[in-house]
Amino acid sequence: MTQLAALPLTSTPRRERTFAWEDPRAAARAGAALSGIEYLRAIATGALPQPPIGMALGMRLTQVSEGRAVFECTPDETHFNLIGTVHGGLAATLIDSATGCAIYSTLGLGDRWTTVNLSVDYLAGLDEHSGPIRCEANVVRVGGTIAIADARVLDGRGALVARGSTTCLVRRAR
Amino acid sequence: MTQLAALPLTSTPRRERTFAWEDPRAAARAGAALSGIEYLRAIATGALPQPPIGMALGMRLTQVSEGRAVFECTPDETHFNLIGTVHGGLAATLIDSATGCAIYSTLGLGDRWTTVNLSVDYLAGLDEHSGPIRCEANVVRVGGTIAIADARVLDGRGALVARGSTTCLVRRAR
Amino acid sequence: MTQLAALPLTSTPRRERTFAWEDPRAAARAGAALSGIEYLRAIATGALPQPPIGMALGMRLTQVSEGRAVFECTPDETHFNLIGTVHGGLAATLIDSATGCAIYSTLGLGDRWTTVNLSVDYLAGLDEHSGPIRCEANVVRVGGTIAIADARVLDGRGALVARGSTTCLVRRAR
Amino acid sequence: MTQLAALPLTSTPRRERTFAWEDPRAAARAGAALSGIEYLRAIATGALPQPPIGMALGMRLTQVSEGRAVFECTPDETHFNLIGTVHGGLAATLIDSATGCAIYSTLGLGDRWTTVNLSVDYLAGLDEHSGPIRCEANVVRVGGTIAIADARVLDGRGALVARGSTTCLVRRAR
Repeated sequence: MTQLAALPLTSTPRRERTFAWEDPRAAARAGAALSGIEYLRAIATGALPQPPIGMALGMRLTQVSEGRAVFECTPDETHFNLIGTVHGGLAATLIDSATGCAIYSTLGLGDRWTTVNLSVDYLAGLDEHSGPIRCEANVVRVGGTIAIADARVLDGRGALVARGSTTCLVRRAR
Repeated sequence: MTQLAALPLTSTPRRERTFAWEDPRAAARAGAALSGIEYLRAIATGALPQPPIGMALGMRLTQVSEGRAVFECTPDETHFNLIGTVHGGLAATLIDSATGCAIYSTLGLGDRWTTVNLSVDYLAGLDEHSGPIRCEANVVRVGGTIAIADARVLDGRGALVARGSTTCLVRRAR
Repeated sequence: MTQLAALPLTSTPRRERTFAWEDPRAAARAGAALSGIEYLRAIATGALPQPPIGMALGMRLTQVSEGRAVFECTPDETHFNLIGTVHGGLAATLIDSATGCAIYSTLGLGDRWTTVNLSVDYLAGLDEHSGPIRCEANVVRVGGTIAIADARVLDGRGALVARGSTTCLVRRAR
Repeated sequence: MTQLAALPLTSTPRRERTFAWEDPRAAARAGAALSGIEYLRAIATGALPQPPIGMALGMRLTQVSEGRAVFECTPDETHFNLIGTVHGGLAATLIDSATGCAIYSTLGLGDRWTTVNLSVDYLAGLDEHSGPIRCEANVVRVGGTIAIADARVLDGRGALVARGSTTCLVRRAR
C-alpha cells in the first residue's frame, strides 16, 4: 500500500456540494389529496418540491401528461463511479422515476403503486459532457393490478444511451 | 393551484446536506495500475477514496474478496422519492455497484468491464428506520466476454428487501 | 435462389415424430380440487398426465416439494433453431415451467397464479449431447400478491447452462 | 391417490400429432454461405426449411427485412400448460426467435450471434381461440459486440399479449 500513499490524491483539491430538500412526507401528504397527474404537475411546475433523491442527484421531473413523464439531469462528477465514468445507477434511477411517474399519472385519487421489477439496458457510457440528458417514459399498459412502462434515456445530442422498463403493482383505492 | 400555495410546505424547516468527494479520475488512474481486487481493497480500506456517487448517496464499498463485494448504506430522508418512501434507485445503484465490483474483483490488470443489463426485483419498501442495509454481490460466472453477478439487499434486520443481477461486457487487456 | 435449389437438403432423410397428450382442461379441472402441491405431485408421479407442451417438447415435471420443482428434458434435434443449436426457447420454457410450479407448490386450494415477467440468462449453448438437462426452481418469496422464484438449468454433467427467474401475480381464493 | 384413479381422465380420447422436420445442420450449413438476411429470406419464402423447433411448436418465420422479423403461430391445445392455458414458453420462444432473427438480419457473412439475456412481460393469457398470433421484432441497436432487439406479441385481434427483448452477443467474422 506504500505506493498508494504516494499517489497525488491527497493534493487533489477537495470537491464538495451542498444540496437542500423539503420534508418529503409533507409533500407526499399534499399529494394524497390529489390525483396522480395533479400531484406530478404540481411538482413539475414547482408548486410542490422535487423529492429529496432528485435534489441529491440533480434530477428533476420536468414534464408530465397522462401516461407520460420526463426527467432531466446534467451528469457531472458527483455521478461518477470508481472507474471514472457516470454510474449506471443514475440511468436506473431516472428510469425508475420516469416510469413510476408515467404510471402514477394515470392513477386516481388514493390509488397507490410500487415497483416490482426494474430492468435497464445500457447502450453507451456517459460523462460530464453528455448532458443534459432526458429520460422519457410512457406506459405500455395499466391494468387493475399490474402496470408496465418503458423509458428511454437520451443524451444531450439525442442519442439513446439507456433504456428500460418497470413492472409496478397497483393498489386501487376502490 | 391555489390550494397548493396554502399547503404548510413553506413552513417546513429546510433541510440541507453537504458532501465532499475526491477527483474520480485521479482515483481511476491509480486503479489502472492495480488489478481489480487490489484497487477495490484500497477503496474498502480507505487507502483510496470512495467514488463521488457513493458520497452523494451515502453508500460505501465495505468488503471485497475474489468474486464478492459488499456495499453498505443507511437510508435516510435524502433517499426519499415523491411518494415519501426510499427511492428504488437506491437499491438499483447498490446492486449495480456491488455486482460490478464483484466482477471487477476477478479481473486482471488492464481488463475493463461495463454493465450491459441490470435487473432488480423489489420485495419490500424501505424507510429511514430500515438501515443499515447491506448489498452483497457474488459472481455467477465470468467468461472471456460476458460476466454475470447476483446481488441481494438486506435491511438492518437481515430481511431480503431487493435482489438483482447484472450482465457485464468484459474487455480483456490481452 | 438457384444455388439454394441445388443444396442437398431435399435428399436429407425426412425426420418425423409423433407425440400424444391428454385433455389439458380435464387435468386442470382435476387440479382444481387439489392444493398446488397435491396436483403437482400427481403429475410428477404419473397419476395425472404431464401437460401437452411437455409432450411436444419432451420435458417432464419430475420432482416437487414445497417451494421447489424440477423439470427434466433431453435435448435433441427437434429443439434446434435455424443456426443448428438448441433454441433458447427450451431453457426459457423449462424455467417458466419450473418457477411456476415452485410457486404453485406453495399455494392453497383455489389459489391462482400467472406469470408477469420471465427473465433468462444464457451461459452456454446446448446440443443433442448436452442432456439430460435439469431445471431446478426454488421460490424466493411468495407474498399475498407477488411471488418470485429462481431457476437454474444444468446440463448432463452438472454445468450451469442457463438460469432465470419469474415474477408471478397470485390471486388468493380467500 | 385413490380419488385420482377415479378421475375420468383415462376415458378422455387420446390426442396425438405428428410433425416432421429437416436436418437442421444441413440448413445451417446452407446458411453459412449466406448473409443473415439472405438466409432468413430463404426460410421465410420456403426455399430453406423452417427449423425443427418451429415444426414442433407450429411457429413459422413469415417476414424478414433488415432489422425486423415476424413469426406467426396459431395456439392450440398442444401449447397448453398444466393449468389449462397456453404456456408462457410459447411467447418466450417466439420472442427469442423473432429478436434473434431481427438481429441476424443485420449481420454479414460469417458473423455469429448468441442470446445472452431474454426478458418477457406477459400482459394477457392465450388460449386456442387467440390466434393467429404474430410476434414482431425490431432491432434497438446492433453494435460491434452487443445487439439488442425488442418484440411484441399480438393476438388475432391485434391486442398486445406479451412483449420482450433480448441482448445478444455478436461475434464478427472480421
